[in-house]
Amino acid sequence: MIASTDTICAISTPPGQGGIAVVRVSGTDAFVVCNKILVFPSREGRRGASPAFGRIFRGEEILDEVLTSTFHAPRSYTGEDVVEIYCHGSLYIQQEIIKLLLDNGCRLATAGGFTQRAFFNGKLDLSQAEAVGDLIAASSAASHRVAMRQMRGEFSNELATLSDKLLNFTSLIELELDFSDEDVEFADRRQLKDLAQQIAAVISRLADSFGTGNAIKNGIPVVIVGETNVGKSTLLNRLLRDEKAIVSDIHGTTRDVIEDAITIDGLLFRFIDTAGIRQTNDAVERLGIERTFKKIEQASVVLWVIDLTKEMFDFRSSISDWESIINNQKSKIILTLNKADLLSDEERERKTSYYSQLHEDCIVISAKSDDDIASLERKLVETANIPEIGANDIIVTNLRHYEALTRARTAIERVIEGLDDSITGDFLSLDIRECTGHLNEITGRQISADDVLGNIFSKFCIGK
Amino acid sequence: MIASTDTICAISTPPGQGGIAVVRVSGTDAFVVCNKILVFPSREGRRGASPAFGRIFRGEEILDEVLTSTFHAPRSYTGEDVVEIYCHGSLYIQQEIIKLLLDNGCRLATAGGFTQRAFFNGKLDLSQAEAVGDLIAASSAASHRVAMRQMRGEFSNELATLSDKLLNFTSLIELELDFSDEDVEFADRRQLKDLAQQIAAVISRLADSFGTGNAIKNGIPVVIVGETNVGKSTLLNRLLRDEKAIVSDIHGTTRDVIEDAITIDGLLFRFIDTAGIRQTNDAVERLGIERTFKKIEQASVVLWVIDLTKEMFDFRSSISDWESIINNQKSKIILTLNKADLLSDEERERKTSYYSQLHEDCIVISAKSDDDIASLERKLVETANIPEIGANDIIVTNLRHYEALTRARTAIERVIEGLDDSITGDFLSLDIRECTGHLNEITGRQISADDVLGNIFSKFCIGK
Repeated sequence: MIASTDTICAISTPPGQGGIAVVRVSGTDAFVVCNKILVFPSREGRRGASPAFGRIFRGEEILDEVLTSTFHAPRSYTGEDVVEIYCHGSLYIQQEIIKLLLDNGCRLATAGGFTQRAFFNGKLDLSQAEAVGDLIAASSAASHRVAMRQMRGEFSNELATLSDKLLNFTSLIELELDFSDEDVEFADRRQLKDLAQQIAAVISRLADSFGTGNAIKNGIPVVIVGETNVGKSTLLNRLLRDEKAIVSDIHGTTRDVIEDAITIDGLLFRFIDTAGIRQTNDAVERLGIERTFKKIEQASVVLWVIDLTKEMFDFRSSISDWESIINNQKSKIILTLNKADLLSDEERERKTSYYSQLHEDCIVISAKSDDDIASLERKLVETANIPEIGANDIIVTNLRHYEALTRARTAIERVIEGLDDSITGDFLSLDIRECTGHLNEITGRQISADDVLGNIFSKFCIGK
Repeated sequence: MIASTDTICAISTPPGQGGIAVVRVSGTDAFVVCNKILVFPSREGRRGASPAFGRIFRGEEILDEVLTSTFHAPRSYTGEDVVEIYCHGSLYIQQEIIKLLLDNGCRLATAGGFTQRAFFNGKLDLSQAEAVGDLIAASSAASHRVAMRQMRGEFSNELATLSDKLLNFTSLIELELDFSDEDVEFADRRQLKDLAQQIAAVISRLADSFGTGNAIKNGIPVVIVGETNVGKSTLLNRLLRDEKAIVSDIHGTTRDVIEDAITIDGLLFRFIDTAGIRQTNDAVERLGIERTFKKIEQASVVLWVIDLTKEMFDFRSSISDWESIINNQKSKIILTLNKADLLSDEERERKTSYYSQLHEDCIVISAKSDDDIASLERKLVETANIPEIGANDIIVTNLRHYEALTRARTAIERVIEGLDDSITGDFLSLDIRECTGHLNEITGRQISADDVLGNIFSKFCIGK
C-alpha cells in the first residue's frame, strides 16, 4: 500500500455559487504549483505568511483576488504541504482556478482524496476518516454527535484497548509455545477466560449498538398507513412544516431514497409512503398491500391513521389474514385517530374508547392543531425508543464496522469455547489473532486491499 | 447615512453540503462573540494567530473542530474586526454555528451585508461594491473580465478623472463669479468648450459601451426559429453538449429566465425557444407567431433552421405580411440549412444555392457533425459581433450606471450649448455641478438615499 505523492486539488466548499469558495491543494508540489499562479503583493505574503492576500494570474490577466493559507507538512489536514485558496465564489472563478492548477501539474482529487491522504499519513485512522464523511452528512444532533465522537477517536481508543488486551493475552500463550517441551502454563486459563468474556461483552455491546447507530445515522423509518382520504398527506405536511426545505437539500446528496424527513428532538425521522390498506380480492391491489406490509415490518414506527368521522371498524381485521402479523408489530403501531375536531364531544368519546380497546397505543388528534402535532411528535420519539446517548457511550453507525465486530465476536466466542474444551495454545492463539485482526480492520491497522479503501473514500464528497 | 456597528454573521460559501464551509463574522464584537463559542488549544491560537485550530463548543459539547482567521480593523474585507470560521461543511454544523453566533449577540447579515459595510467604511466605492456582486454572478470569461476590472477600480478611476476635470473647470468659473463686478474671465471659454467636448466624448463612449456590456453580462440572446421537426431541439442539444450541467446551476440563482445557455469563446449565449413559424389564419396561432416575432426583434442573433430534406420554399415569405420586418432583421439572421448529411451531393448543391440567393448569411450543417457545430459556433460569435475588449477598455454593464451616464451626458451637452450661447458663469456652473453629481452617483460619492443602497445590495447573495 503505497501512498501517492502527486499534488491534488479540488473545490472543497459546496457546489454552486456563493460569496466565498475554498480550493484546496495538497502534495509535495503544493507550494510550487501555487506560486506559479499566485502573486503576493506583500513581503509577508511572499514569505508564505497566512492568511495572505494574493492575485491569481491567468497569463497577464488577473483571474481573482484571493486569500491563501499555507500549511507545512506534517502540520496540515492531509499531513502533506497544503495551500487553501479562498476565492470569490463564482462558478466561473472556481472552475478556472481548478483549470489553472491542473495546467500547472496538479491532479483533480477523487472523492475523499484529502481524507484518504490524511489516513495514509497517519493523521487519522480509518474509522476516524470514515467519521469525517459521516460528520459532513450528519443532519441531526444525534448523528452529528456520534460522528464527532468517532472522528475524535473515542471509538478507535476503545478498539485499541481491546486489541492491546488481546495482544497481551496471545503473547503469553505464544510464550508457552516457545517452551512447549517444558509443559509450563504462563497464562492462567481461568484468568484468560474471564478476560475473553469481558472482551466478548464489550464487542457485543458495540455490535448491538449498531441498531441504534443505524437509526441515528440514516433516520428512523416511519411508515404512514391508512385508507385513502383519512388525512395522511395533510398529517405528513403538518409534521414536515418548514423543515421540508432543509430536508430537500439532503435529497440525492447523501441518501438515495428519503421520501420526506424531519428532525424531532435531535433525531431524524424518515417518512415512507404506502398504498392504502383495505380488504380486497383484486390480485394487483393485494400485491400493493403486500408491499405496504413489507414496509411496516421494516419500519421502526407505524402511524396507522384512522378518520374518526368515518364508521368505526376493527383496523386489525381490515385485512383479515394479516391480523396475526399485525399483532407482531403491535409495539410500534401508533393508532392515530384523526379529524377529532369534526366530532361532537360525546361522539369523539365513544369512538376513542372503542379504538382504545382495540389497540393500547392511541392518540386522538386534529391535524390542524399545533398542540396535537406536538403530542404526536412526542409519541413518535417515545415509540422509536432510541436510547439516550450517554456522555461516554460509543455507538457503531457503520455497516463495515458492524460486520467486522460480528466477525470479531465469533472469533472471541471460539476462544472461550476453546478454553472450555482445553484446546492447545497454538489454536487459541490463532483465534485470538483472528479477533484482533477483525478489530484492526476497523481502524485500518490491518487493511491492505486497495478496493476496500477505494470503496470507503468514494462515498465522500469531492474536496474533503 | 450612519453605518451600523452591530456584529453580523453569515455563511459565505455556497448553500449546501460540502467538505468545508466558511462562516464570516464582522463588527465591533466579532472577537468577543467568537471567543465565547471557540476554545483554542494552542497558545498561538489564544493570542489570535491565523489560521488557528479551534473547537466550537455548544455548552459542554464539541460542535466542530475548525480553523479560524482573524482580521483586525481596518485591515479586513469590511474594514471592521472580522473572524472567518472554516468549519466542516455539513448542513447541520453550518446551521448550528450560525445559531450559536446569534445566541451570543450577532445579527444575521442581510444579502450583500459584508460588502455594504466595506462600502460604508471606505474599503470600496459603490461601483466597486456592485462589481463584487457581478464578479460572483459572472459565468463567462468576458463578464468575469469586465466585473474584475470594475472591482479593481478602473471604472471608478476613469470617473474620478472626469469629475476632477469638471471640478477644475467649475472652480475657475466660480472664481470669476467672486470677481463678477470686475468683469474678468479666468476660464478661457474656447478651452472650456474643448474640455467639455472631450468629457462629453468620454461619457458618450462609456454610455455607448452599455450595449456590449449588457450582452456580456446577461448573455447574448439567440432565438431559434423554424417550422416544427426541422431539428431545432436536436441542434440546441448539440450546441449545449456537456455545458448544460453548468448552465443548470445558473438557473434561478442569478437570472430569472434562461431557457438554455452556453459559453462560446468566452461569451455567454442565451437560447430562447419559439413557437414554430408558418403561414396561418388561425387567430390563436397567429398570436403565438407574433410573440415569436417580438423575440426575434429583441434577439441579437436569429438561427433560422431549415430542413434541407423538405421542399424548398422562400423562408421570408413564409409569413408574407412580415417579409418587410424580417428584412429589417436581416443582418442578424443566420439561415441554418440542416440535415445536409441526408442529401445527395447534387441535391445539396442545388438547394444550398437556392437559399444562398434568398439570404446572404447561410450555413449548411448536419447537427450530427462536430465540425459543423463548431462552424455554427464561430458563425454565432461573428454575428453577435461583440467587440473585442481591449486591455484598457472600460465597459459599462450596470443599468444604474448607464442611466447616470445618460443624465451626465445631457448635463454636459447643456454646458456645451451654454458656452455656444455665452450664458453667464452661474448657469454654466450649475450644469457642470449637475454633471459631476451624476458621475459621483456611480461611485457613491454623492448618494444619500438609503433605499437606493438597499436596492443595490439586496441583489447580492447572503454571506458576501
